[in-house]
Amino acid sequence: MKAIADIRKQKDKAAKGEKTRQEILEAAVHIASAEGLEGLTIGRLADELHLSKSGLFGHFGSKEELQLAVIGKAREIFVREVVDPAFQGERGIVRLLAMLEEWLAYVGRSVFRGGCFFMASAIEFDSRPGQVRDLIADLSRSWLETIENEARHAQILGQLDTRTDTGQLAFELHALVQEANWSYNLFQNRQAFDQARTGILDRLRQATTPGLLRLLGKKSAVKKKPAKRKEPK
Amino acid sequence: MKAIADIRKQKDKAAKGEKTRQEILEAAVHIASAEGLEGLTIGRLADELHLSKSGLFGHFGSKEELQLAVIGKAREIFVREVVDPAFQGERGIVRLLAMLEEWLAYVGRSVFRGGCFFMASAIEFDSRPGQVRDLIADLSRSWLETIENEARHAQILGQLDTRTDTGQLAFELHALVQEANWSYNLFQNRQAFDQARTGILDRLRQATTPGLLRLLGKKSAVKKKPAKRKEPK
Repeated sequence: MKAIADIRKQKDKAAKGEKTRQEILEAAVHIASAEGLEGLTIGRLADELHLSKSGLFGHFGSKEELQLAVIGKAREIFVREVVDPAFQGERGIVRLLAMLEEWLAYVGRSVFRGGCFFMASAIEFDSRPGQVRDLIADLSRSWLETIENEARHAQILGQLDTRTDTGQLAFELHALVQEANWSYNLFQNRQAFDQARTGILDRLRQATTPGLLRLLGKKSAVKKKPAKRKEPK
Repeated sequence: MKAIADIRKQKDKAAKGEKTRQEILEAAVHIASAEGLEGLTIGRLADELHLSKSGLFGHFGSKEELQLAVIGKAREIFVREVVDPAFQGERGIVRLLAMLEEWLAYVGRSVFRGGCFFMASAIEFDSRPGQVRDLIADLSRSWLETIENEARHAQILGQLDTRTDTGQLAFELHALVQEANWSYNLFQNRQAFDQARTGILDRLRQATTPGLLRLLGKKSAVKKKPAKRKEPK
């Protein structure tokens, strides 16, 4: 009986430890998005959470381990907030649009205190070789490829013109959301979300097959000036 | 005579001081582009330049003053490397294209060790209110507006369709260069420059008046797959 009680105690302790770890990471990810992953020292985190440095060291042996764990947490949040809802849409152009829409919405509701975590950490770490940089690059590439793959799937379904260069299309769609993130966080410019959407729809209109044009509306968006805030967007 | 000699000595001293200040800023701007403006402490700079901290304090009274001076230096470099050469082109679409081309070329030759200084510092400081953030935002907005103004000038010259929303166009052109900067610095992906150019030409083709289409070539670039590396780019 004592053995079973001990096992239960150990399990409880492990579960509690994991819960604390997740709470630490949740706080850390927001600090990192606003102040940078490099500014996220164990000391800084201990201050914010009113925990001891030695306690934090028990969870994360080094600053690099903490940074890697924070990126893992940010990935989990991104999947929950952007990928999962978008993947409820049917494959092809509907899902492609949903991915971009959910990504824009996540930027707009400031899921991370300092704007998109991945864009911020990419810019911060692109000149710092190492495991942290590699993980950020892998996850960023993976999202870009997910966008491209969905465009390719839309081609297979006959929704996008097979002559469309999907790598080019993904580059441009991805650029528009990143620009909205930049503009919103630097200028508090919410109009940037409409500008990104206008660009996205325009890119997709250019690439869709004639049968699908009805879905997206026919006119080129760049050629059209917004009608002085009369039309609801 | 002694008075004149004293004035000359003072002038020499001031000139020497200014030269040293410029050399310090030149080094600082590269450190900041790679490691962040916040990582640029007077101590870090003293180490890199083998100067005393007190000597550096003589030039820059505080970290914030140093950061503001570094941004001023970065602006000077951006003007010399991008704005000045682009402004040699004639007004309108030629200058608009030159601005984007020179900006891409500056990213491609890594004028700043860590990629475009302004994009890096915008992402770093967008969540840190204060003078530094305001200056970065002002300069970033000013460049975006310069792009838009040139597009508007191209409309006045009859080169761009007057129905084109120049704010939208500037947003999209700016997005493409920023994406190339992101992709090149994170993935060492030089193809990103071609992708940005393809997008830029495509946006301009969409907006040009029929008479100008010959200047840019007629086909939509997004619709065209690159012919498996046969064509020289």
